[in-house]
Amino acid sequence: MPSLHVDLGPRSYPIRIGSGILHDPELLVPHLNPGPVAILTDSHVASLHLASLRETLRRGGKEELLEIVVPAGENTKSLQQTGSICGELLKAGFGRDSTLCALGGGVIGDLGGFVAAIYQRGIPFIQIPTTLLAMVDSSVGGKTGVNHPLGKNMIGAFYQPRAVIADVDTLDTLPQREFRSGLAEVFKYGLISDPGFFAWLEEHLDEVLSGETDALMKVILDSCADKAEIVARDELEGGLRAILNYGHTFGHAIEVASGYGTYLHGEAVAIGMVLAADLSRRLDLLRESEQQRIYRIVESAGLPTVAPRLPADDYLRYMRVDKKAQGGQIRFILLRGIGEAIITGDVPEAAIRQTLQAFMES
Amino acid sequence: MPSLHVDLGPRSYPIRIGSGILHDPELLVPHLNPGPVAILTDSHVASLHLASLRETLRRGGKEELLEIVVPAGENTKSLQQTGSICGELLKAGFGRDSTLCALGGGVIGDLGGFVAAIYQRGIPFIQIPTTLLAMVDSSVGGKTGVNHPLGKNMIGAFYQPRAVIADVDTLDTLPQREFRSGLAEVFKYGLISDPGFFAWLEEHLDEVLSGETDALMKVILDSCADKAEIVARDELEGGLRAILNYGHTFGHAIEVASGYGTYLHGEAVAIGMVLAADLSRRLDLLRESEQQRIYRIVESAGLPTVAPRLPADDYLRYMRVDKKAQGGQIRFILLRGIGEAIITGDVPEAAIRQTLQAFMES
Repeated sequence: MPSLHVDLGPRSYPIRIGSGILHDPELLVPHLNPGPVAILTDSHVASLHLASLRETLRRGGKEELLEIVVPAGENTKSLQQTGSICGELLKAGFGRDSTLCALGGGVIGDLGGFVAAIYQRGIPFIQIPTTLLAMVDSSVGGKTGVNHPLGKNMIGAFYQPRAVIADVDTLDTLPQREFRSGLAEVFKYGLISDPGFFAWLEEHLDEVLSGETDALMKVILDSCADKAEIVARDELEGGLRAILNYGHTFGHAIEVASGYGTYLHGEAVAIGMVLAADLSRRLDLLRESEQQRIYRIVESAGLPTVAPRLPADDYLRYMRVDKKAQGGQIRFILLRGIGEAIITGDVPEAAIRQTLQAFMES
Repeated sequence: MPSLHVDLGPRSYPIRIGSGILHDPELLVPHLNPGPVAILTDSHVASLHLASLRETLRRGGKEELLEIVVPAGENTKSLQQTGSICGELLKAGFGRDSTLCALGGGVIGDLGGFVAAIYQRGIPFIQIPTTLLAMVDSSVGGKTGVNHPLGKNMIGAFYQPRAVIADVDTLDTLPQREFRSGLAEVFKYGLISDPGFFAWLEEHLDEVLSGETDALMKVILDSCADKAEIVARDELEGGLRAILNYGHTFGHAIEVASGYGTYLHGEAVAIGMVLAADLSRRLDLLRESEQQRIYRIVESAGLPTVAPRLPADDYLRYMRVDKKAQGGQIRFILLRGIGEAIITGDVPEAAIRQTLQAFMES
C-alpha cells in the first residue's frame, strides 16, 4: 500500500493511500488518544461511509463514539458551526484525552481540523478524506479553518493531523463534477513543481478520469508527495509555500464574487490557473505553447476555463483582501515555465485587467 | 528596567517591566510587522490608556492605526466577539503583514491573543497588560482563548506574543478589588514552586498592597520568571505545566456555578487555593501550619476564602467537564508543602465533599 511520511519533526504523520483501507482498524486505532472518539461528518458522507467507519472503530475496540453530522456544503464552514460542534463535545464531556476523526471532503477536513485545533486549545485529529480534492490538498499542510462572511478561509489555524487515511474506494461514490474539481489541484502540483508528473497527467488523463485504481493511487501519492516537500520546507507559510496558491488569487475572488457554492473550489481554481497562466504569458514569463498545454488539460478534464462576467473592479477589490495581499498589494503566483512557480507582487494592474477581459464569460 | 526573556526557541520573546514604559516607542515598535497596527482594548481601558498607546505608536512612525474597542467584562470573551473583531480587521484590509496590540486585562489578552492566533491563521501580537492579573498570568504561557456558554476557556489556542510590555504605572488606576484579585495568582507561584518568594510576600504584603513601585516590579518579575520556567519546560501543557492550575479546579467550578462575573477570576482562584490547601491537608500531604499560612495570606490580602453555597453535586459536575479532567476523572493540583505541587486524579470524592462543606458560605 502506498504510504507517505510527512516530516515535520514532532508533528510528523503518515498518509496511507489504498483501496478498502477505511475498513482496517490497524491503520486507524494506533493514532487515537485513549479517551472517547468523535466522528465529524456531513449528512451526505454520513449516508455513504459513516457506518463503515463506526464498524472499523468498534472492531478496533473503540465503543465510546460521538457522531456529529453537520449539513453538507461550504456554508457549514463557519465560526458559528465551530461553536456548536464544540458545544456537542462539551456536552458529551470530551476532554483532552479524546480524538476527533474528520470524515468527508475539504469542508469537513478544514472545519474538523479547526475544531480540533481550538477545542480546549487542541485535541488530536485524524483526517479521513472522501473526495479527491481533500485527499490531494487538505491531507498535507495542516491548514484548517472556516470562512468569514467577508472572506474565505479568513479564520483558521495551522494544525497537523495525527494521520491521514485516504481510501480511494470512497471516490467511487463521488459525483463526476466533484472528482474533476479535485483534479484541478492535481494539475497544480505538476504546474508549480513537478513537470514530469504534469506530462504523465497529460498522457494518462483518460485512465484518471475513468477512475482506474492504480492511476488514482499515483495521482494521490504524487500530489501529496509534491505538496509535502513544499510544506516541509515552509510549515508556517513564510514564503515558498505560497506557490501552492497558484490559481487561488483569481480563484478565491471568483468564489467570493459569485457567492460561495456557485463554483466548486477546484472549478474556481481551474479558472484561476488558466487566468494565471495567461497573466504569466502576458508578462513574458511563460511561452504560449505552455499556456496552451495548461488550457488544454483543464478543458479536457471538463473543468471551466472562463470567469463569470463581473466588473474587473470587483475582482480587484476581492483580490486585495486576499490573505496573500500585503499592504493592499495583490500577490500572484505565476509560472516561469511548466514546473516552476514564482511569487510576485509586481504585476501591472493593466495586465490583470487584460487577463480578466480575455477570460470572462461572454 | 527589569526584563525577562521567555525562552521558547523560535517563539521566544521579551517581557519588559517598568514604570512609564508604555510611552517608549523603542520598546514597542521593533516588534511590529511592517504593515498596519490594530489596537484591541475595552471601553474602560480605552478611556485610561488608549491615547497614550496611540501617541507612542505615532511617535514610533506608526500612523495607520485601527482601534477596536469592545465592551469591558468577561462576556466579551466569546466566539461571537472573535468573529466580529475579525470582521473589523477584514473590513480594514488587514493582511498577514499587520500586528495586533492587546491593551488591557486578562480578557483582552486572551481574546486578542486568540484573534491574532486565528486571523488569517495567525498574525503577530503584542501583549500590553494593564492589570496585575494579566501581567503575572497572561504574559507568560501563550494561552489564548474565549469562553463557551458551556465552559470557561474551552475554545482557544497556544499562541505566543512577540513581546510583553508591563507598565506598572497602569496599576495606579486599577480598582483595589482587581488588584487584590491579581495577587491570588502571585501567591500561587510561591505556593507551587517558589517558597522563598512566598515568604517574601508574607513579609512584604503591606508594601505590595500599597502599590510601592519596587515591590510591584519584584512581584511581576518573580511571578513571570517562575511561570516562564515552568512553561519553558512544558510549552503545550503535557504534564508539569498543569501545576499552574493550582486553585483553578475549584476556581473554575466556582466561576461557572456562580455565573461568570460574580467573582473576579483571581477571587475564584483564591477560594480555590484555600480549598485545594484544605484538600491537601486532608490527604496528609500538607501540614496544618502550612495550610494556615495559605489561609492567612489570602485573607490578609482581602480576598475571599469561602465558596458560594451550592449543592456539592453541582461543583462536582462542573469540575468533571474541566479541561484537566481525564475520562471524567477530576484532576487536582495539590501541595506537598509550600513550594511543591503535585498533580493527581486520585482523590476520594468523600474528601472533596468534606472540603466543599468546610469552606462554603454559611
